[in-house]
Amino acid sequence: MTRVKFLVAAGLASFLCNCSGATSTQGDAEKLMQTSREWSKAAATGDTDAVLGYFDDGAVMISEGQPPVRGKQAIREYLAGTSKIPGFKIEWEPREAKVSGDMGYLIEQTRLTMTGPEGAPVTREFQAVTVWRKHKDGTWKNVVDMSTSAAPTAP
Amino acid sequence: MTRVKFLVAAGLASFLCNCSGATSTQGDAEKLMQTSREWSKAAATGDTDAVLGYFDDGAVMISEGQPPVRGKQAIREYLAGTSKIPGFKIEWEPREAKVSGDMGYLIEQTRLTMTGPEGAPVTREFQAVTVWRKHKDGTWKNVVDMSTSAAPTAP
Repeated sequence: MTRVKFLVAAGLASFLCNCSGATSTQGDAEKLMQTSREWSKAAATGDTDAVLGYFDDGAVMISEGQPPVRGKQAIREYLAGTSKIPGFKIEWEPREAKVSGDMGYLIEQTRLTMTGPEGAPVTREFQAVTVWRKHKDGTWKNVVDMSTSAAPTAP
Repeated sequence: MTRVKFLVAAGLASFLCNCSGATSTQGDAEKLMQTSREWSKAAATGDTDAVLGYFDDGAVMISEGQPPVRGKQAIREYLAGTSKIPGFKIEWEPREAKVSGDMGYLIEQTRLTMTGPEGAPVTREFQAVTVWRKHKDGTWKNVVDMSTSAAPTAP
């Protein structure tokens, strides 16, 4: 193969790789960060269908001291349950994103608020890792949503 | 471009994609499961250097109620600390693996044992998600190691 033909083929290879979403890009990481921010906004509205739309069909939620919640239907029921908790509010902020091919993950900080036993809002901080798959339409869907208590903050 | 040239180029594209580890394979997922099992065995021996060898230089450990431990040196110090805990033993078993390109994740079940206040071993169960990057030499290195308490088991 001549050098020119090799370069053409290598360029085509690179193009095909991009088409299948197999190349890691900073743009994908930024898109994942933005998806997380939009998801947090959807969660703040309490719109279960909107929140659910960010999950992959086979997603699993793993939370502290709870059995894993597997699949979109189980997650729907879980979200319906949280929406009935007095004063329930959840919001989060992505801190970093890494992407390779059609998989990526985020490290996030999450804040959960509920009405406490004395009627005042009680807020707890969590640290989260979420894993994502890029679907063929270019959207990122959450496949693993895992959280655990953050370290106690200094008083 | 003739059809033959296109097929040759597409074949080369596929070959190049495989070379860069950009193709998701069941083999990679199984290799990741096996890496996790070997890592657990290394942890059982208490050999800090062996355990540390599974971490990527930029790895982060996220544990319940603790600040994240970032980077191999900080993780080394963390592991040295756990090795001094009386009766400390950690072991885990991977339950499922997914891979895309040079990124993958595992869902694992972890068992931590320490000597309790009354001198008898106390065991706690955790659920873990670990994220991995495939290095150029084909080895998988851990980039995120996150755990949280499992659900209490029925008495």
